[in-house]
Amino acid sequence: LSLWSFLSLIQFADQKQEFNKRPTKISRRSLSRSISQSSTDSYSSAASYTDSSDDETSPRDKQQKNSKGNADFCIKNIKQADFGRREIEIAEQEMPALMALRKRAQGEKPLAGAKIVGCTHITAQTAVLMETLSALGAQCRWAACNIYSTQNEVAAALAEGGFSVFAWKGESEDDFWWCIDRCVNVEGWQPNMILDDGGDLTHWIYKKYPNMFKKIKGIVEESVTGVHRLYQLSKAGKLCVPAMNVNDSVTKQKFDNLYCCRESILDGLKRTTDVMFGGKQVVVCGYGEVGKGCSAALKAMGSIVYVTEIDPICALQACMDGFRLVKLNEVIRQVDIVITCTGNKNVVVREYMDRMKNGCIVCNMGHSNTEIDVASLRTPELTWERVRSQVDHVIWPDGKRIVLLAEGRLLNLSCSTVPTFVLSITATTQALALIELYNAPEGRYKQDVYLLPKKMDEYVASLHLPTFDAHLTELSDEQAKYLGLNKNGPFKPNYYRSAAA
Amino acid sequence: LSLWSFLSLIQFADQKQEFNKRPTKISRRSLSRSISQSSTDSYSSAASYTDSSDDETSPRDKQQKNSKGNADFCIKNIKQADFGRREIEIAEQEMPALMALRKRAQGEKPLAGAKIVGCTHITAQTAVLMETLSALGAQCRWAACNIYSTQNEVAAALAEGGFSVFAWKGESEDDFWWCIDRCVNVEGWQPNMILDDGGDLTHWIYKKYPNMFKKIKGIVEESVTGVHRLYQLSKAGKLCVPAMNVNDSVTKQKFDNLYCCRESILDGLKRTTDVMFGGKQVVVCGYGEVGKGCSAALKAMGSIVYVTEIDPICALQACMDGFRLVKLNEVIRQVDIVITCTGNKNVVVREYMDRMKNGCIVCNMGHSNTEIDVASLRTPELTWERVRSQVDHVIWPDGKRIVLLAEGRLLNLSCSTVPTFVLSITATTQALALIELYNAPEGRYKQDVYLLPKKMDEYVASLHLPTFDAHLTELSDEQAKYLGLNKNGPFKPNYYRSAAA
Amino acid sequence: LSLWSFLSLIQFADQKQEFNKRPTKISRRSLSRSISQSSTDSYSSAASYTDSSDDETSPRDKQQKNSKGNADFCIKNIKQADFGRREIEIAEQEMPALMALRKRAQGEKPLAGAKIVGCTHITAQTAVLMETLSALGAQCRWAACNIYSTQNEVAAALAEGGFSVFAWKGESEDDFWWCIDRCVNVEGWQPNMILDDGGDLTHWIYKKYPNMFKKIKGIVEESVTGVHRLYQLSKAGKLCVPAMNVNDSVTKQKFDNLYCCRESILDGLKRTTDVMFGGKQVVVCGYGEVGKGCSAALKAMGSIVYVTEIDPICALQACMDGFRLVKLNEVIRQVDIVITCTGNKNVVVREYMDRMKNGCIVCNMGHSNTEIDVASLRTPELTWERVRSQVDHVIWPDGKRIVLLAEGRLLNLSCSTVPTFVLSITATTQALALIELYNAPEGRYKQDVYLLPKKMDEYVASLHLPTFDAHLTELSDEQAKYLGLNKNGPFKPNYYRSAAA
Amino acid sequence: LSLWSFLSLIQFADQKQEFNKRPTKISRRSLSRSISQSSTDSYSSAASYTDSSDDETSPRDKQQKNSKGNADFCIKNIKQADFGRREIEIAEQEMPALMALRKRAQGEKPLAGAKIVGCTHITAQTAVLMETLSALGAQCRWAACNIYSTQNEVAAALAEGGFSVFAWKGESEDDFWWCIDRCVNVEGWQPNMILDDGGDLTHWIYKKYPNMFKKIKGIVEESVTGVHRLYQLSKAGKLCVPAMNVNDSVTKQKFDNLYCCRESILDGLKRTTDVMFGGKQVVVCGYGEVGKGCSAALKAMGSIVYVTEIDPICALQACMDGFRLVKLNEVIRQVDIVITCTGNKNVVVREYMDRMKNGCIVCNMGHSNTEIDVASLRTPELTWERVRSQVDHVIWPDGKRIVLLAEGRLLNLSCSTVPTFVLSITATTQALALIELYNAPEGRYKQDVYLLPKKMDEYVASLHLPTFDAHLTELSDEQAKYLGLNKNGPFKPNYYRSAAA
Repeated sequence: LSLWSFLSLIQFADQKQEFNKRPTKISRRSLSRSISQSSTDSYSSAASYTDSSDDETSPRDKQQKNSKGNADFCIKNIKQADFGRREIEIAEQEMPALMALRKRAQGEKPLAGAKIVGCTHITAQTAVLMETLSALGAQCRWAACNIYSTQNEVAAALAEGGFSVFAWKGESEDDFWWCIDRCVNVEGWQPNMILDDGGDLTHWIYKKYPNMFKKIKGIVEESVTGVHRLYQLSKAGKLCVPAMNVNDSVTKQKFDNLYCCRESILDGLKRTTDVMFGGKQVVVCGYGEVGKGCSAALKAMGSIVYVTEIDPICALQACMDGFRLVKLNEVIRQVDIVITCTGNKNVVVREYMDRMKNGCIVCNMGHSNTEIDVASLRTPELTWERVRSQVDHVIWPDGKRIVLLAEGRLLNLSCSTVPTFVLSITATTQALALIELYNAPEGRYKQDVYLLPKKMDEYVASLHLPTFDAHLTELSDEQAKYLGLNKNGPFKPNYYRSAAA
Repeated sequence: LSLWSFLSLIQFADQKQEFNKRPTKISRRSLSRSISQSSTDSYSSAASYTDSSDDETSPRDKQQKNSKGNADFCIKNIKQADFGRREIEIAEQEMPALMALRKRAQGEKPLAGAKIVGCTHITAQTAVLMETLSALGAQCRWAACNIYSTQNEVAAALAEGGFSVFAWKGESEDDFWWCIDRCVNVEGWQPNMILDDGGDLTHWIYKKYPNMFKKIKGIVEESVTGVHRLYQLSKAGKLCVPAMNVNDSVTKQKFDNLYCCRESILDGLKRTTDVMFGGKQVVVCGYGEVGKGCSAALKAMGSIVYVTEIDPICALQACMDGFRLVKLNEVIRQVDIVITCTGNKNVVVREYMDRMKNGCIVCNMGHSNTEIDVASLRTPELTWERVRSQVDHVIWPDGKRIVLLAEGRLLNLSCSTVPTFVLSITATTQALALIELYNAPEGRYKQDVYLLPKKMDEYVASLHLPTFDAHLTELSDEQAKYLGLNKNGPFKPNYYRSAAA
Repeated sequence: LSLWSFLSLIQFADQKQEFNKRPTKISRRSLSRSISQSSTDSYSSAASYTDSSDDETSPRDKQQKNSKGNADFCIKNIKQADFGRREIEIAEQEMPALMALRKRAQGEKPLAGAKIVGCTHITAQTAVLMETLSALGAQCRWAACNIYSTQNEVAAALAEGGFSVFAWKGESEDDFWWCIDRCVNVEGWQPNMILDDGGDLTHWIYKKYPNMFKKIKGIVEESVTGVHRLYQLSKAGKLCVPAMNVNDSVTKQKFDNLYCCRESILDGLKRTTDVMFGGKQVVVCGYGEVGKGCSAALKAMGSIVYVTEIDPICALQACMDGFRLVKLNEVIRQVDIVITCTGNKNVVVREYMDRMKNGCIVCNMGHSNTEIDVASLRTPELTWERVRSQVDHVIWPDGKRIVLLAEGRLLNLSCSTVPTFVLSITATTQALALIELYNAPEGRYKQDVYLLPKKMDEYVASLHLPTFDAHLTELSDEQAKYLGLNKNGPFKPNYYRSAAA
Repeated sequence: LSLWSFLSLIQFADQKQEFNKRPTKISRRSLSRSISQSSTDSYSSAASYTDSSDDETSPRDKQQKNSKGNADFCIKNIKQADFGRREIEIAEQEMPALMALRKRAQGEKPLAGAKIVGCTHITAQTAVLMETLSALGAQCRWAACNIYSTQNEVAAALAEGGFSVFAWKGESEDDFWWCIDRCVNVEGWQPNMILDDGGDLTHWIYKKYPNMFKKIKGIVEESVTGVHRLYQLSKAGKLCVPAMNVNDSVTKQKFDNLYCCRESILDGLKRTTDVMFGGKQVVVCGYGEVGKGCSAALKAMGSIVYVTEIDPICALQACMDGFRLVKLNEVIRQVDIVITCTGNKNVVVREYMDRMKNGCIVCNMGHSNTEIDVASLRTPELTWERVRSQVDHVIWPDGKRIVLLAEGRLLNLSCSTVPTFVLSITATTQALALIELYNAPEGRYKQDVYLLPKKMDEYVASLHLPTFDAHLTELSDEQAKYLGLNKNGPFKPNYYRSAAA
């Protein structure tokens, strides 16, 4: 297979290996809104550094061309391309795996002929992905999956580089769908691969251009929401192409949750409140991977951390890791910070907020924006005061204030940046999934949702080891035989998952 | 179902739930020896406190009766019963779950009519299990699964309490099988349940009394080796009763590996060598659960820890957890301590030991005794000096010494004690598996190997939470609905496994 | 003594106790510049949130009055007072000790009659201090000790509140001295106490109004630089009033160094570079309190930390804490981040920077701005690129970049905020020192430099315990006698210092 | 000076440096007993490995000779010499500094002519010290400072090697003084140096042979108790020779307290109770260095740690380090383990023990054996049950048990071993102090108590760095000048002390 000779490191021991095929955890969101929730969540990243563009004209009303005369894009301001290029170059330095893929692409082009339409956050890291896909042989057209998250200068650099990008920070809902439509509704160009984050692009094609699926070889979907939609389609028998769920790969899960949150909880709290962690009493609701990361980080900084859980297995882990397992009402009066990481709804309800002490900080690190019942705070007797960006004081009649961050939305997306390295894991996983689906022989994948093969998951990990100057040990023939493993992996069974979430 | 009304806390939402049914990881051992390896591994625990019995007569040649005149047992010395009783009472204090089961048994006896034959380590903790099974209604006959591990005084207390126990510390191989035979070959009594640890008892019945399986409702097996044997039987179509693999339950795995090893690596090293951990350079081979526990503990004590791995996913985790990932040969000259936790063979070979520095400590925390190539040290030019129990100095011609612990066998079984609390998890899992198999309606379990149902796994965890005064949060109806879960669990899917081993 | 009845908690066991009187560590700076270095260091804090004032008129050219018609101040814009008041109110919430002092002042006014002239950073936290001094009975006039650090809106709130404040962000050097002069050169008002931070105010009075010292009861000095100047004056026999060195109190030292830097190293690196800490290799130069804090924090976040030291005692501590002790040249090629915390000069010289790898981050957490030889990077073959505020890429001819933060100035002052709680410790120490000097009976203090009495140091600590809901144990009479201590302290001898700096 | 040319690394910058001369912290013990408390504390170390000698004859009644016919010693059994020699050789491997001193002694003998009489614990580590002193040129006679702590086989090895040793495990009080007397009351030999640990030897000479002091050049004293006695003598004007307090050197303090206790608290608890640390609730009384070490270790192992303190500065540190600061009565009902580290008396009184929960473990890590009011448990209604060596169950009428370790004596001396590396620090400090006092020019030291010069303290530390392959950075001339330091140290002022004890 050209794919694997391309990837070079690894070879299939057995062509007939079974690919993972099972439902992921059910998404808990209502999907009834016209665009997905993720498309309205704000997403800061470096975006915040380039806010102040004084030009109020809508990009849709502008005529712009890049330096080569190409006008097949719609972005805020092509003149920001240089600044965007610098951001991309910085990002490249922490995305070693994609850069390695590019190098290998000098000989072979595993995506030659691929026409990829994408709908993701448009950031410097995405740009590195797109330029990698291009180097691998693909043509790309791209829209934003979120109306706030586009880094305008990066979009400019991409447009300058010849990509057909349709995105800007602060799109209206109408803009949002218009941009997506501009990606797919093109004369003389039809996509054969979809890279989606949230399912809106897929949804749009289903709704407007269902015939397009005839030429599409597969969908790669990144988000919980989008994956859920795909499983729903699959159950309903309506999924008409293979789809790859890259959200649940082990490597991505560990980085998105444990490792990323361990750092971003500190970053998000500091940037918004400058709170000192030492000696603070904190309650972390939920002890999955996100809760584990938050709890460990705060404990390391000298906070006293309490944990709540519903699942006895995770609860026992919290105990063994040195956290008092409590019910929220037992500590709500005494804690300085409340952090939700449950994926559940109404974990912090008004009754609890009524009992919090003055100055208590409340924030959400969990997937769902419904963990804190923010709506219950929108009552006449409470005063809201916006003290900083993403920071509200909610003031009780007696003067007590609680400090609500990001209005209960995801703290690490709203108030901190996601390290490029974490995004590198995700982007590499996406790239490999695209390569796999595009090159898969007829019949390997059916009209269903698949997990990334374990071997590719391991391959993503191995591509990131050089960053740490980490040296992997190789099995001897004798050892491989003893263990009953192929020397090149996979080393874990397919059912192997990341830790106790 | 009487079982669940007995267990009382929990109820099946759905009578038809699917039970787990899948192969566990393949054991890598040759099983060609006449008794299983685990039956010859030494196992210290509190046993070491009662070594000095000067009576050299074989228990088989003695005539002993307990105070009620019962003589249906064979142990070292019935007079040690009082001391054994005290050890049992101490153990009871850290086995809250079994004690809780006993309390509930005052009304109902879920094991009424059960005739259990057991073959496990005979320690104070096992005694608490046996007396619990008895309180639940069962009759028990018991042999040791290891020729060294019996605590003679505990065996005495059990015999005094009326149990038919056949075991002593220091059995010969012939004694070993004789004891097992005495458990099953009884007039007027036939077992209907088997509790095994290593598979030797099961093997014996298969070989000598195959007809006995007609009355047996199930086998509960604890060890990797025994589980492997059962899967082999199952594959060969020769398994004639249902078997429960309790080795791979999440709770047990976490405690046996991560939490237990985190403490026992320190304990084992201290008791044998009194080494100071601060500032020491250590290499941990393998970053599964055991390696994670060892690495974290030593880092916390101020050691500088290097890690080796073959699997890129575990390797990346080691990096993110702050350990330099190296190949063994890169650090072998500089480290003070080498610890193997791979499950592999020949990880530390003679070539590496030749290059170790003077005083380097070498030990094994992994499952397999073959991780360190100890055989390669049995050469004429090297001198062995036994400096303490379980501690050998191997001396090179130039005077260099390495400190080999437990001759490469499992350090935490040989040189430290396993905390009662860990054994409590295991014993509770065993008790619940026995109850489940014994009470299961016809047809729930076929002639196959099963994992403990997730719900029971969670139940074991929940029974241990009160020890920590831990308070579990309950889902509201609204939340349970939102999550699509039953309020009483299970909270995790069946494929949920413990972390990245 | 009214002071102590005021402070109420504590009583002098012995009126004749010896006060500390010894030189602190020698400052290593050349003091030849016309204004002290600290007056030109930038100091971010919340200041950065209010940059954009479009008014370019110099405050010295404006005529402003507060709402009561008072015009005895000179600030940027009195209209910002409301916003400043909110910042002050937020700060009050984390300055519990000063608020407690205010409450006690309702009966007694230990600073009644005090006329304090101050020269410090003008921030929300300073405002809380000034308003506390005022509540205690003092009159205050205030200038900024740094030309960049003034929070204009806070200055406005103070002016609105009736304080004579002379300060704005972005003063020229001429402005700087003009403001100081306006504080002291007033008709009909002469200061009797000085609160200084850097020694510039004291220097100005010595130079311009030496006669003023006749009425001055004492100087309280906060900074290393200022303390050094005072010791020089003392040695030269020119110190004509008692001075209190509050820089070296135990509580302040611990918080300014260990506890503050533990958090601000992470914050400063994240805000400037968004770097992921996990798996990064870091070298920390110097293992005093600052180095200890930085090393511990980064280790906790999963970095691999190397330490350099010159002092064998601190070096041995680094070893025992689990850090490899190296010379810088041994690791300079491999590390991702270099942090200086030595107080020394030219620790990171050009030769080392030539050998760093691409993308290496270089920053200084130490006291001295000379730790990194930034001047050596100002050569023609190297290109500087300002990529963000406080972040420069220095680019070698071969394209290698190093990432230099804050041009080698103090990272935690330049690129992160100092938690209010840390400033609360400092401000409380200053307030108590002013009270002590102002109320001290004739003869207790001579014309020399004193450390804050241990008992007051302990008192500052005790005032901050309620923040943590921390409950101090009291000695029984019997225990106090056994220990030979007064029940109310001091509990430590005067020579007791904070840990190994 | 021959001393320094001998030590070679270091040179006095200034011959006239002031030596430290100040009182250490007051000992809190009554000293009225006939022998010092430390001489009756048991002290386990490896001693426990060689308990079972069946010979009941008193050594005083035996006639023994070593293989060279020498009979000037009195020990248990000269035949144990070989085993003792092996223990000594093992100890040598972790005492690098003394071995380094021996190497240097091949040329010069800085203790040539010294006649040292010693009274210390007689262990393998002491043997390494004695043989080092001998290699440096000294003659030695030695007695035990504790009636239980002698390792008989080590004493045998020393006697075989020609040392005049008078000590055995299990001396009576009469034996104790007899042994001391045999060391000093010798025809034709008079000591000129004293090495004491507890002050009993010094006391004996003062009482019986005061004229001996005419030839004695100095006393080196190791223990708090002995140092206190010396200060009392000094105050009373009765100290007739210089004395060196080696107890309070920075390096020794850090190792004896923080670093040693961090490991020995875990070791002591595990060996006695096999308790699992994860999830346990622990209260640590006192947050000095010992309390800090205990708290950090247990937190790292997953315990939940509460701290009590009387001193607000230490209390604030506990808060910032992430521990809840409580009064003992607030948590006494819920904790699983109580550890005292205060140096105070009656910290854990009967009233608290009455309220502890069943199975609570109580132990003392502090200096004073009076921290737990053990006497209050010797009442008729409570039953004591010795369950293991050093472990008592104290049983209340209702069946509640508390687990009392070492009857409230020091856990780390009674129930764990002290790492050789810690003892190496102490022994090296003693050796250097002997060399310094013996070689000091007339007049440098008067009849007073001195601290080890800072430079020597640093030298002890530097001699231990090679163990960790640690590389110290050297100051450049320019840097030394900038800092105002000598390039070879001392790097810290004399008043520099270890951290907040």
